[in-house]
Formats: sequence, structure tokens, C-alpha cells
Amino acid sequence: MSNDPLKELFNVSSHNPSFFSVVEKAGFDGEVVDFCIPVNLHFPPAEMVELIHENLREILRYYPDYSEVHARHIGAIADLPAENVVPCNGSTEIITTICRLAKGSILTSIPTFSRWTDLPEELNVPLHTITRRREHNFRLEVSEIVDRCRNVGARNLVISNPNNPTGAHLSLEEIDQLVNYLGDLETVIVDESFIDFSDLESAASLATKSSTLIVVKSLGKSLGWHGVRLGYAVANSGRAEKLRSQLPFWNINGLAAYILKNFARFKDEYYASFARVAQDRIYMSENLANVEKVKVFPSCANFLYVELQAGLSGKLLRDNLLKNHGIMIRECSNKRGSSENYLRLAVQKRAAVDRLIEALKIEVANMSCGHVVLSAA
Amino acid sequence: MSNDPLKELFNVSSHNPSFFSVVEKAGFDGEVVDFCIPVNLHFPPAEMVELIHENLREILRYYPDYSEVHARHIGAIADLPAENVVPCNGSTEIITTICRLAKGSILTSIPTFSRWTDLPEELNVPLHTITRRREHNFRLEVSEIVDRCRNVGARNLVISNPNNPTGAHLSLEEIDQLVNYLGDLETVIVDESFIDFSDLESAASLATKSSTLIVVKSLGKSLGWHGVRLGYAVANSGRAEKLRSQLPFWNINGLAAYILKNFARFKDEYYASFARVAQDRIYMSENLANVEKVKVFPSCANFLYVELQAGLSGKLLRDNLLKNHGIMIRECSNKRGSSENYLRLAVQKRAAVDRLIEALKIEVANMSCGHVVLSAA
Repeated sequence: MSNDPLKELFNVSSHNPSFFSVVEKAGFDGEVVDFCIPVNLHFPPAEMVELIHENLREILRYYPDYSEVHARHIGAIADLPAENVVPCNGSTEIITTICRLAKGSILTSIPTFSRWTDLPEELNVPLHTITRRREHNFRLEVSEIVDRCRNVGARNLVISNPNNPTGAHLSLEEIDQLVNYLGDLETVIVDESFIDFSDLESAASLATKSSTLIVVKSLGKSLGWHGVRLGYAVANSGRAEKLRSQLPFWNINGLAAYILKNFARFKDEYYASFARVAQDRIYMSENLANVEKVKVFPSCANFLYVELQAGLSGKLLRDNLLKNHGIMIRECSNKRGSSENYLRLAVQKRAAVDRLIEALKIEVANMSCGHVVLSAA
Repeated sequence: MSNDPLKELFNVSSHNPSFFSVVEKAGFDGEVVDFCIPVNLHFPPAEMVELIHENLREILRYYPDYSEVHARHIGAIADLPAENVVPCNGSTEIITTICRLAKGSILTSIPTFSRWTDLPEELNVPLHTITRRREHNFRLEVSEIVDRCRNVGARNLVISNPNNPTGAHLSLEEIDQLVNYLGDLETVIVDESFIDFSDLESAASLATKSSTLIVVKSLGKSLGWHGVRLGYAVANSGRAEKLRSQLPFWNINGLAAYILKNFARFKDEYYASFARVAQDRIYMSENLANVEKVKVFPSCANFLYVELQAGLSGKLLRDNLLKNHGIMIRECSNKRGSSENYLRLAVQKRAAVDRLIEALKIEVANMSCGHVVLSAA
């Protein structure tokens, strides 16, 4: 097994290997279905794609607009003043900048999006964690976050809401409480990259008036196109200006800029798409609940956090689903605060879910009597 | 004139306003021709565009690959080991990073690409300049650069080669001499963003073996698509690794990644396109030389540096060319070391050049007898 190209592939970092590299090396003869990348599968609509096709040359020929133009367009989408918006080349660019600017230590809940745990360490910013507990369905209480913050003396707090990968959430009221209790911190950062898929209310308008709160948001997930690289932060106008000044000129590519510019006419489809994802999530969650030896936790995002019964290897399951069924899943052994007993499954459409459920039943059954796997290998 | 939307538009920064914002506000009834943005007009070929159209959905759906994959692809294009390549979201991203990492002062020749003068000041890095002189056709000698470096005690040197906006150049031998003479500096940075349009040999392979030399390169200009946001730096492997660690994950968008991945099959067209740009440059240069009160300097890039006779206002000429002829040019008053007496004209195809020459003759003649302009206004 040590020469297994899959093993090598999945061993690269705390994030997923890219879909392209997996498809290339999977050796599965057929269409690979992806449950790793939580992206909106009900957007963009065909008319939007068509518009891009028609204008591709012009879109790419010239330098894109400057940041203030994008800030205006994002402001229109999110109903925020442009002066509070910091457009960025995917949320990762602004996460990198925020971590770089942090003067004191960072407290983040785990498990979480791995950039929030890896970057502080790469940048030598002291990192503290607060663990989301299974017994509480991975929900955190305001009081325990505040206590932990005080106990470790953290200067910055990061909460992803809804949390990636568990799908657990805090209400806007709870976020507001957190910000009020922790008014002496440098920053309270709420990463709302998956909030569009939930019924939660954004804390962005709180951030415009707060001295500490910064809301971070990916747009790629919501737009259905991770590859377009687009995100933003929301902060009070002084802080937003400071953040913008840290980012390179022309950090938003021409295609992302064009989507922003023409977004208004697809607004209705955009919001409708989230409701469709929510329906898919319910279908997927209900069907997964029927698979033996698998437990699904409540989620308001476009992914589900799934626990495998003790003894079932998430890595082996991942490899077998890919090789035997062309199904790509993510196990969480490379996420701090999680393990290979957990999967984060991106919400897919019904047909793909049916294929997953069938394959899961087969592979979980096989793995439960180890000799079958070995004799088949 | 104080309410003139054009005036406001061109008053935004030390760079161009975007083509889109100009077209929107120009009020010219017809196709606007752009002489501001020096981009390869003979690339990409139709087949490459077609390939992108066919695969757009897949290209954008997923997270793009990680940096090492792009480094390998860029290495294949530039004939460099991947370990020496730092892929970036346009050269501006790496320029920002390099300026941020500079410990000591920076010496840059002026005029130059404005990021190289603006960024050090924004980041509080002491900036020194060496002025390219008209009497020398804006060429610099190795000895005068070294002397200036010593006199001001600079710790970092930046040379854009060929120089933007003058088109003047240093040979590879001269770059090699510079690097050798200045071996005690932190960094010697050569910005080769326009080198593909010249016959100059790149210093990139020198950089792989040097402790100080970093070569910076935009690919958007060469690929014909500024909006795609793609560039790279070349340095010794240790330095390249350090630079890569400073950049956000997924900084290369899906479309740029796809172009890199599929570049090999368009390599011949790519190199042929530069020869075609060179022919356009000769045509444009020869024809501009026939316009009265205008002097063209030698250039090996895809733009020409043009001097207006004393008394002719570059700003007025720019506004008149845009309003009366739909021709967009760049005057250099917002570039340190230049003035509105100079234009940087991007090389265009013959038909556009003919249109420019005709319009220039009319407007220069009008401006030479000021009362005509005033009575017409």
C-alpha cells in the first residue's frame, strides 16, 4: 500500500487535494462524484454562464476595476455600505491578512476551516483552541467561549458560523453577546462563508458599527464557483480601509469582477438556489440516517458532519468509495479537533446522494468484516 | 471643466483608470480603441478560447490546484525548475510581498511601473530613485546604478527590464554585472513583465542560482489577458519557498490554472505572437515618427514612450482624443520621473494605429493654435 498514489495524494496538507488531481489519479473508470467541496450546485443559472461566454474576451482582456468598484457591487449584494466592504481574492486572502495583522494570540474553535489553525502557526501567532464537543452536537455556548478567552488571555477570537465542518451555529443574538462581552479584544472574527445556506442572520451590519467585529465571507461557495476566487470582509470603515490597504491592487480577477457587476439581474435565482440546497440537505440527512454505523449531526450549512462507528476507518472508506464507486469524500483526520472517524460530506443533489447511500452501505458492510476487504484487494 | 467626469476619472491614482470605467464615462458614440493597456493582441488563439468555453463550468466549479502544480506548469513554460517558481495572482501580488519583506531601503529607477514607487511609501520602506535621462534615451549604465546604490546606501534594487514606460533596456550581461557588483544587497529585483515582447534574454536562470536576484514576471500581458491575473517570481529555491509561504492558498484562480495546465499545446502560437507584436511596434513607431511635434523613443517592449513638444498638454490631448475620436491614451503626469509631456502608447494593430495617427495629427494641430480649441469648446 505504500506505493498507493491515492495515499500520497491525500497526504498533502490539512486541506483537500484538488478535485482535478484526485480525478487524474483515482483510476476510476467513469464519472467521479464529489462530496468534498461544499459548493452551491443550484447556481449559477444558464443565462449567467451564457453571458460570460458571450463576453469572455472583453472580460479578460483588460485590467479589472479597482477595489472601490467591487466594494460597491458587493455592498449591493449584501446590503452594506461600500466603505465597510473589503473585496478579496477568496476569503483565504483576507484570512491570511487578518492573521498577519494580529498583534496578540488567537483563539479559535476546533474543528474549523484549517486555514484558521494553520496560518497562525505559520505566522508565529500564538494559537489557542476551544473544542466543540460531540455531547453538545458541537454547539458552543457564549459563556464557555468567553471563559476560555479569559482563561487563555486571547486577544483575538475566530468563530466560523455556521461552523465548518460540524454545521453547528450561533444565533445573531449570541454573536452580539460575544462581541459585547469581549469588547476589549483586538478582534472578534466571524467567518460566515457558509451562512447563505442557513436561515441565520448575518452579523455583517453589526460589524459596520463595531470597533472589534470583522465578518469574513467567501462568495465562491455561494456563487457555485470556487475557482472564481472571490470573497470579502466587513468591518467599520476605518478598519476596512486599513485592510484594503494591505491587499494587492487588482486582486480581483476580471471574471469575478464581471460576475459582481452583472449580479443584480440574477439576484432572484441566487436566493432561490439556497432554498434548493436546503432541500437537498434535508434529503441527504434523512437518507444518511438510515445507513447503519453512521451518525449524522444537525447542520444548517451545505455539508453534513458524519460520525463513523468506532473501528471503521475513514481513510479506508474514502479510498474504497473512490476506487470502487467513483465517490470522493473527505475524512477529517487532518483537521485539529476531529479524526478519521468523522466525514464532512458536501450536500449533493438527490441522484448523487442515492449513489452515495448505496455505495456507503456496501463499503461499511465490507469493512465491518475486514477479511472481505483483504481478500478483494 | 471642474465638473468634467473625465477629469475626475483620470484623477484617481498613479495607475490607469480601468478601461471599463473609461468606456462607461467617455460618452464617445462608437468603439473605443485602447492605447493604454499594453497587452498581447495576437494571443490567445481562437482554439484556446474555444477550449475554455467548452470547459468553463468544470474550470470554475472546484478549488483550483495548489501552488506546486502551478509552479510545475510555469516551470515548463519558462524552462525553469518548479522549485524556483513562485506563482502569484498577477505580478502585483508578488511585488507587494517583496516590498513588505524588504528590511532596508529600496532603490528604483524612475519612471517605472507605479507599484514599485507607491508600495514602498505605503509600507514605510525608505525609497530612493535613480532617474532615467532623456539625453540617454532613458537607458541606464551599470556603473551609474551601482554608484547611486552606494551613494544612497540602498539595500534593495529594482530594475524593470525592459523598462516600463520608457522601453529602454539592460542586456543580460549588464544584469549579471549588476548582480555581481551588488552581491551584498538584500535583493536585486528585475521586473521582466514585458520581456517576452523583446529580443532580450531573461535573467530567470541566473536568479535560480543567485543569493540576491529575484526575477518578477507578469503573464497576463504575454497571454493577452490582464483580467486573468497570473504572474510569478523566480528565485533560489530557499527564497522561492519563503516567498510562496507568504502568499495565500488558492491565490491562482481556476481559469488561470486551466490556462497553465493546457498551455503546452499553444506554445508555438504563443511565441509567434510576440514576433507579430514586434512587427506592429515597428509599424507604429515609424508612423508616429511622421507626426509633427511628437518624438518617439526606442523601445523593445509592446509600448512606445512618446514626448510631446513643450507647451502641448498631454492631459488635454488625452481628453480630446477620447471625446472626439474614441481613442484612449495614457499621459504620464502621475508617474514619478515623468510628466504630462510624455505618453506611453501601447502597441496596437495597424488599423488602430492608422486611426491614432490621423486623430493625433488633427488634435496636435488644433492644440498648437489654442483659440481653435477654445472656440470649439
